[in-house]
Amino acid sequence: MIDKQHNQLSFGIGVDIGGTKILIMIMDNQGNIIFREKVKTSNNIKEIIEIIKTCISKVNIDLKNIVGMGIGIPGRVDSQRGFVIEVPSLGWENMKFKSMFEEHFNFPIYIKNDVNYSVIGERWLGNGKNKDDIFYISIGTGVGSAIIANGKIIEGYHFSAGEIAYLLEKEDVKSGRQNTFNDFGVFEKKTSGTALTEQGKKLNLTAKELFIEYKKNNPVVVPIIEEFILEISIVIANVVSLLNPESVIIGGGVSESMKCLIDKIIDTVSKLTPMNTNIELSKLGGDAGAIGASSVTFQNFRKK
Amino acid sequence: MIDKQHNQLSFGIGVDIGGTKILIMIMDNQGNIIFREKVKTSNNIKEIIEIIKTCISKVNIDLKNIVGMGIGIPGRVDSQRGFVIEVPSLGWENMKFKSMFEEHFNFPIYIKNDVNYSVIGERWLGNGKNKDDIFYISIGTGVGSAIIANGKIIEGYHFSAGEIAYLLEKEDVKSGRQNTFNDFGVFEKKTSGTALTEQGKKLNLTAKELFIEYKKNNPVVVPIIEEFILEISIVIANVVSLLNPESVIIGGGVSESMKCLIDKIIDTVSKLTPMNTNIELSKLGGDAGAIGASSVTFQNFRKK
Repeated sequence: MIDKQHNQLSFGIGVDIGGTKILIMIMDNQGNIIFREKVKTSNNIKEIIEIIKTCISKVNIDLKNIVGMGIGIPGRVDSQRGFVIEVPSLGWENMKFKSMFEEHFNFPIYIKNDVNYSVIGERWLGNGKNKDDIFYISIGTGVGSAIIANGKIIEGYHFSAGEIAYLLEKEDVKSGRQNTFNDFGVFEKKTSGTALTEQGKKLNLTAKELFIEYKKNNPVVVPIIEEFILEISIVIANVVSLLNPESVIIGGGVSESMKCLIDKIIDTVSKLTPMNTNIELSKLGGDAGAIGASSVTFQNFRKK
Repeated sequence: MIDKQHNQLSFGIGVDIGGTKILIMIMDNQGNIIFREKVKTSNNIKEIIEIIKTCISKVNIDLKNIVGMGIGIPGRVDSQRGFVIEVPSLGWENMKFKSMFEEHFNFPIYIKNDVNYSVIGERWLGNGKNKDDIFYISIGTGVGSAIIANGKIIEGYHFSAGEIAYLLEKEDVKSGRQNTFNDFGVFEKKTSGTALTEQGKKLNLTAKELFIEYKKNNPVVVPIIEEFILEISIVIANVVSLLNPESVIIGGGVSESMKCLIDKIIDTVSKLTPMNTNIELSKLGGDAGAIGASSVTFQNFRKK
């Protein structure tokens, strides 16, 4: 894994802070993963910094060839000023995150929402290569999304873009379902890993097992997964009608069990919008965020 | 209207080709309207060119100060190559539109979808001033939209972005409602000037009269308009959740009668998405498209 050649390259660190795990990766500018470690998450900045320093010390590379570190945050981030606005799951609010890290490292730090880094990762090494218009939908514990249009991430005016969790339909409104900050959104309550887990519980099945039973044509499970497919397909179709992306990428933890669903999703979406697009599962899976986070260090390096 | 001072300025021509009328405007680079004329529409290119030439001849300006002409097209346009891809309402398909016009004029020609020019117009002189993230929704005979994100129009991979006409809900799918090219979309069939006109017919009222009766609290009309408000508000709320724009602008012919509805729409949207935005009716109304079309001539001029 470690050879002399690496010392001639530049390296970027990508950190993906999740609700349960932190993924730390060191990559070279050719797209090779030099180091990869997953540790239990922490909301303590000093602890996170120590974890990263330990990781760096494990790798036999020339430290002066590290060109930067990107950190993906599971919440709202002012990426321009380097502020974390809020991350309810980790209890973070209004933190000068970038400068807190810069004090401890000799290279530039970049921060962004984690899902935004995922689509950047897919665009670098995954299913979004050379594409300027991508819709990335992340289905995990919750649901989220990231949008690249005209070759640039859409972060939105308050850095809140991509919140498909809040999508709703007339039926939801008439039934009194509402969206509130720091709670699961209306769409998310119907369609997420958590929603599937809850439905599975009634049948003594995990979310993953639901997909396996669907594949086996289990008559109790089929309508549950068909509803899931329809809900996801409607959201994808509507975003395709609105943004006309070249490509739709489905990522996030749940997507890793969705191979048996993708053809049905493609077929359903094609019936719901007359616009063509290309729908694929994420190529990089759970690594997309850390890969994307490391990649921005090279882009900025190249710009210099 | 015409004075000597104008000769010191540069002028841009904005043409908005609609399904029933063509609006021709000549503006100076300070945002003043020098000339404005509306004529019956034509799908004959030679005829349109003659109409424009006649308009130019009516204005006492130095022709060498005309820096370009922008033409808004009610259909799908490859704005980069200057091709009209398709305009079903005018029977146009795969036309080298830009070069057909360039043969007859000595200044650069720009073409784009008409709704995209409307939001560009609002951003220059209307309610989108100095804003980089705008969602513009146009309610007229049909419905359409235009998106500015990161300061740039999102045209989409096939130049089809903004097609909210095709938005649909689970209820639509379960009822067998489908979207097909060259037909009104599922959302559009429920919510557009045409949809309102049809509902009004049953009561012997025009679309405009429906709004007047709503204001008078006519008990038969109130539920029709409340449904209209809800439908529009759901689409706005969903786009706000997805794109987090600074501003939402409601334009198009029908919007001109919507003053009595805007407060209710603002209130409804605020209940459907937890994200803040600013919702306003178009300031420029039906002139937005031609104003936007003329403005791009100045932008390109300045870039040189």
